[in-house]
Amino acid sequence: MQSVKKISSLQNPLIRKVIQLKHKNRERDKTGLFVLEGQRELSMAILGGYRIDTVLVYPELFPVLEAIQMLVGQSANIEIIEISKEVYQKLAYREKTEGVLAIAKTKDHSLDSLVLPKDPLILVAEAVEKPGNLGALLRTADAARLDAVIIADPKGDLYNPNTIRSSVGCLFTVPMAAASTSEVLAFLEQHRIRVFAATLTGAIPYTEANYTGGCAIAVGTESTGLSEEWANRAHARVVIPMEGQIDSMNVSVSAAILIFEAKRQLSSPAL
Amino acid sequence: MQSVKKISSLQNPLIRKVIQLKHKNRERDKTGLFVLEGQRELSMAILGGYRIDTVLVYPELFPVLEAIQMLVGQSANIEIIEISKEVYQKLAYREKTEGVLAIAKTKDHSLDSLVLPKDPLILVAEAVEKPGNLGALLRTADAARLDAVIIADPKGDLYNPNTIRSSVGCLFTVPMAAASTSEVLAFLEQHRIRVFAATLTGAIPYTEANYTGGCAIAVGTESTGLSEEWANRAHARVVIPMEGQIDSMNVSVSAAILIFEAKRQLSSPAL
Repeated sequence: MQSVKKISSLQNPLIRKVIQLKHKNRERDKTGLFVLEGQRELSMAILGGYRIDTVLVYPELFPVLEAIQMLVGQSANIEIIEISKEVYQKLAYREKTEGVLAIAKTKDHSLDSLVLPKDPLILVAEAVEKPGNLGALLRTADAARLDAVIIADPKGDLYNPNTIRSSVGCLFTVPMAAASTSEVLAFLEQHRIRVFAATLTGAIPYTEANYTGGCAIAVGTESTGLSEEWANRAHARVVIPMEGQIDSMNVSVSAAILIFEAKRQLSSPAL
Repeated sequence: MQSVKKISSLQNPLIRKVIQLKHKNRERDKTGLFVLEGQRELSMAILGGYRIDTVLVYPELFPVLEAIQMLVGQSANIEIIEISKEVYQKLAYREKTEGVLAIAKTKDHSLDSLVLPKDPLILVAEAVEKPGNLGALLRTADAARLDAVIIADPKGDLYNPNTIRSSVGCLFTVPMAAASTSEVLAFLEQHRIRVFAATLTGAIPYTEANYTGGCAIAVGTESTGLSEEWANRAHARVVIPMEGQIDSMNVSVSAAILIFEAKRQLSSPAL
């Protein structure tokens, strides 16, 4: 690890780069880099095997020594930079976000990069629009220790700061792939993984499906649901009965109900 | 119904009142009034038996005639007001929120106001901090047709515009009460309703609890969980096993998993 540099100017090229990477999808695409923020997020990224390039520390909130300790065992090329209060306030989402940001390298999220066990349990989310929803799905996927989350027809890149934040870092540890809906369907068929498509019509109650033996649970957007391809090619369509006034739930809530029903069945297959 | 008035000045006292009611908890407490926004929200409030006092319509997005049709059968004292684009833009959350706002009367949410069936299924949420979380809980409660949602030790009032919005109007149709934690516990004991407290320690897996025969599922905040009183006086503590890196899920996600497991058991008590 090199010696610790200090930056106190908002005009510094590195600071401008961080701002670009935070706000611009295109900049992340072009460079293959992204920005993360927060101590937990940094430790999750390290745990997830992400390559960290630069760590920016505001020492009043996060001592440089602690940053160095977190990076023990990581590459010797990580640059650690002390930033001033002014710079930190400019970069941080909120003033209370724990005094640390980092620039890291994005990962390969092709379907081929997934390493699946026998009889995997997978969540497929099609065209998730809000970064907050994707983050919430990843958080649930972590809790359920899903074997993969696959984003079909993704909107925008995966490394939006709001996605990272709402995933509380699970974006870094949950096995994740992204591809077009037809590619995902072909992948699942090729691996003989049954698909349960969450739809609102022509479906069986989700509690009546049998999720044992490996499957993918597919959910669509709140506004339009899954595209027809999913409904047509699914092993079964499942519905969570809506007994009240409204006709849909938040996608992260529906997905959690389906996933945990599958988990329940897997842990007590006799039922 | 009176003749339709027009308002195009941001200085108009009624417009100022709407702004106050939207932004100030204290103003809502003082007047017993609140503001709702959106066509669905208005129809849900009517369905929920709320008293509507004033309806503000921006006719380019929502024709006055349609507003009048929605109010058929309601009190003849409802004031309908056409507002200008400038006023609408000042009042509306977003420009696309469907051209209608209304001032309505808050309801009594004392525990005594609840009308419970035999063997009710109730959600108790203690000290929910974020309006968005409370809204999401109400949305799930609607989908599951819970008999009541009880807010223990509420933070702020129930009619925060963000709560209404994130509940997509379910705030108006789900039977809801608010009281202190000790009052809620006393109420549940008095009605011999068993409590399942969602905790992280000293608990049984949530799938091993038997929710049939009427019960209350209690959830706490994401940061601190339920207060000790709940854990101590609960019939059982239940936990959703966290198998990944993080130690908690979003409260609306956990609550949904617990509620729908209870629903599953209630619809197939033989299992």
